[in-house]
Amino acid sequence: MTRFKDLSQPGQYACEERVDAVGPKGTIKGVRVLGPVRSSTQFEISVSDAFKLGVQPVIRNSGDIKDTPGIKLVGPKGEVEVPEGVIVAARHIHMHTSDAEEFGVKDNDVVRIKVGGPRGLTFDQVLVRVSDKFNLEMHVDIEEGNACGVKNGDLVELIK
Amino acid sequence: MTRFKDLSQPGQYACEERVDAVGPKGTIKGVRVLGPVRSSTQFEISVSDAFKLGVQPVIRNSGDIKDTPGIKLVGPKGEVEVPEGVIVAARHIHMHTSDAEEFGVKDNDVVRIKVGGPRGLTFDQVLVRVSDKFNLEMHVDIEEGNACGVKNGDLVELIK
Repeated sequence: MTRFKDLSQPGQYACEERVDAVGPKGTIKGVRVLGPVRSSTQFEISVSDAFKLGVQPVIRNSGDIKDTPGIKLVGPKGEVEVPEGVIVAARHIHMHTSDAEEFGVKDNDVVRIKVGGPRGLTFDQVLVRVSDKFNLEMHVDIEEGNACGVKNGDLVELIK
Repeated sequence: MTRFKDLSQPGQYACEERVDAVGPKGTIKGVRVLGPVRSSTQFEISVSDAFKLGVQPVIRNSGDIKDTPGIKLVGPKGEVEVPEGVIVAARHIHMHTSDAEEFGVKDNDVVRIKVGGPRGLTFDQVLVRVSDKFNLEMHVDIEEGNACGVKNGDLVELIK
């Protein structure tokens, strides 16, 4: 895998490499591979992507891929049937240990996040992940982001 | 316009007719026309649709289309430049007058709606529309629906 661009979490990067994902009902082309290499392949999609591909949308935390749908991935040098690992990633917050201390939360806590504005809402069920290797950042998928009108870098409010 | 299927709100229907919407950056094909005829053309999209078409996503209540983006609509017999009317519809609840009495709300009130489950959240800024011609129903767009994992017919909780 060839590093294309660093992501906001330390050590994580987007790759030059892209693949096409082929499901029973449709294909999503040019999906960028993220690194570094994990122990298992994981393919993160939105609920809309799931309908387009024709797979069940299964909400899971990253890494929790047992009994999730599989997918065929097609690259420039061949293709592979991934038997499981297609998930709709559950929303979560990455926090450095010092952030967690400041907010008074710990790894695996579930908190609420309030977003203001004309599409304001409060997300329940937001998982907190704490590590010395994390930067403070909430991750939602594109549909969750559009549903509340946030953009990358916007500030939101944590409610315990 | 040729009636294809009644919608859940009395008198509203989906038509056989479809058009392609052509924006500066992309096209959405086969968009179904809804009836009956309004005084002005309104084209309701999601935030993702706005990016695909290349128009600004503007959150508005239905009918409030002044200074919103326009769009080119292409049908089987020609095309038309609609000068304005492209909106991301603000979420809202249709209520019959008797429902409004039961909930203790009135037309144009703004309430909150709580959705449970693994993608649970509480929508703020939900507009209440009351009429003797409405059936009780909350309308969200596909991204708002997917963000909280609801399907058509699911029950949600109104919070005043």
